[in-house]
Amino acid sequence: MRAAIFKGPGAVEVGERPDPVVQEPTDAVVRVVLGCVCGSDLWYYRGDSPHPAGSIGHEFIGVVEQAGAQVRGAREGDLVVAPFIYSDMSCAHCLNGSTISCPAGGNFGNGVIDGGQGEAVRVPLAGSTLVPVPGSGHPDAVLKSLLALSDVMSTGHHAAVMAGVSKGDTVAVVGDGAVGLCAVLAARRLGAERIIALSRHADRQKIARQFGATDIIEARGEEATQAVLDLTGGIGADAALECVGTEQSIATAFGAARPGSTVGIVGVPHGQVPFAETFFRNVGWRGGPAPARIHIPELLGDVLDGVIDPGRVFDYQTDLEHIADAYQAMDERRAVKSLIRIGEI
Amino acid sequence: MRAAIFKGPGAVEVGERPDPVVQEPTDAVVRVVLGCVCGSDLWYYRGDSPHPAGSIGHEFIGVVEQAGAQVRGAREGDLVVAPFIYSDMSCAHCLNGSTISCPAGGNFGNGVIDGGQGEAVRVPLAGSTLVPVPGSGHPDAVLKSLLALSDVMSTGHHAAVMAGVSKGDTVAVVGDGAVGLCAVLAARRLGAERIIALSRHADRQKIARQFGATDIIEARGEEATQAVLDLTGGIGADAALECVGTEQSIATAFGAARPGSTVGIVGVPHGQVPFAETFFRNVGWRGGPAPARIHIPELLGDVLDGVIDPGRVFDYQTDLEHIADAYQAMDERRAVKSLIRIGEI
Repeated sequence: MRAAIFKGPGAVEVGERPDPVVQEPTDAVVRVVLGCVCGSDLWYYRGDSPHPAGSIGHEFIGVVEQAGAQVRGAREGDLVVAPFIYSDMSCAHCLNGSTISCPAGGNFGNGVIDGGQGEAVRVPLAGSTLVPVPGSGHPDAVLKSLLALSDVMSTGHHAAVMAGVSKGDTVAVVGDGAVGLCAVLAARRLGAERIIALSRHADRQKIARQFGATDIIEARGEEATQAVLDLTGGIGADAALECVGTEQSIATAFGAARPGSTVGIVGVPHGQVPFAETFFRNVGWRGGPAPARIHIPELLGDVLDGVIDPGRVFDYQTDLEHIADAYQAMDERRAVKSLIRIGEI
Repeated sequence: MRAAIFKGPGAVEVGERPDPVVQEPTDAVVRVVLGCVCGSDLWYYRGDSPHPAGSIGHEFIGVVEQAGAQVRGAREGDLVVAPFIYSDMSCAHCLNGSTISCPAGGNFGNGVIDGGQGEAVRVPLAGSTLVPVPGSGHPDAVLKSLLALSDVMSTGHHAAVMAGVSKGDTVAVVGDGAVGLCAVLAARRLGAERIIALSRHADRQKIARQFGATDIIEARGEEATQAVLDLTGGIGADAALECVGTEQSIATAFGAARPGSTVGIVGVPHGQVPFAETFFRNVGWRGGPAPARIHIPELLGDVLDGVIDPGRVFDYQTDLEHIADAYQAMDERRAVKSLIRIGEI
């Protein structure tokens, strides 16, 4: 089959990889319909984090082509959303909602197992991993939003849930990448009344507004913190969502959070938390990689009902043969998130 | 009046201080019945943290002797519990439950304002700060438990609430000081089924058992973390309560917490959180100085009903004139917590 192949920093090429087959009775092979490029794929592309040569990607929707004998919950022909990791949904961690820590689970697109930036994927633990989409004939906009559930929307939602966003809250969202934008949408969905988005790019501000942002702050660092305080009468936000992961963005999120609140962190942390200072303000944090498999069923209905449309984050699209352009567009910040059209339903 | 006077590390003496008077119409003067020595007073006593010369202490119950014209909620003659800071209960932070951040609030026993290790205290914002105790003729054990609400029990409860302890949980408590022991009691009160207390002192283990600990771990550091994992089938605790604040105890608490859980931190942090590692396990933290004024009303009823008896943490007692002995007993670890009998009801 044709698939993206990571060859090293700056080099993602399309080539031939073995056709996935059912190896275990709990496997399924999914024919990919839509894939995309994640912000974390860019770390590898830029050489910021190591990645083995080989398969890459971890977000896709597709159609189950073949299901192993023990696969329950997803059948051949089903349109399915794949969370960005697979998990068994029966161990203590999965039952606690932490699919990320499933001992039987693992990552897609890790160099060996395919990851959605290709024509097909062997999905281990397919019955407990894949989430079938009810109905048929979904319009393209819905399919794009379903794809967003695979990672970015589930991750933005995770930030909002971890921060305890609830009805009437004022929420500050740090980060205007696809995850940050989805965090805005998630906060609105959870009933936030005021959503302050930190963004300095007009195109992203526009999406943030569409997703529910009521205020935009263009400043960064301490100025941004001060701006949030100014907007909230000196109190701070009821919840801050950290969707970047740099030392500065982490400090901004903690500074913007009011005493007694929680920062929801989904940006992989590359800095330290200002621990002692936040302790005395009773500002805590929760978060981590999103257990997308837990969040997808809750979000799926709202996508199908048109309540949320996270697919709007895809502002660049191409086909599999041109996936290198998709990486480049994101690397050069010409795109928030690149969609890859791979197959038909 | 007679009161403890902090003169410098190792030197707490009893001497004369001005009789407190109502200075503002929102003040009350409280005649102290019971006071005590806090673990944080020991930092000053040991020279680990700076403290101005003068008044010291911040935990007391007493009787309102005089109330300013604008004091509502506490009347002359009332037996009252004082939270360890005063607050207005009307600002945004107080209404959000973060009395610690009340801009009008402040600390008792800060060198200037009296703090309960003396015969009387001027309490600013008395109407919103003091919590009257219903009924009369309470036995001595109840009075000691009411005193514990002033700080340690509210703080232990705060750790449990911040960690989200709920019915059926397995909880690990790091720290066997008075706060850690109260955290055990708080976890039991919130319905924890299994409570693993980390303690290596027989006298404290005994109180921990009385408070509801089902398991005791004597190891420290990585061995303690491993012991918690061994007791929980490799999963970890549903909540970990950090009641010490050292780098080692923080690491132990995070290591003992299962993926997806929250560490409740009330030990003033003297170390860093292992941030990146905990992120990938979705282990967060919440906590800080307890908003005792928020917690006391909820806990008070259970003290009066005999449901909880946090006063058991007082295993040493003396009178005001011998308060230096009370400090010394705690400093030498002969006492978990020292009670000071100061006045009659």
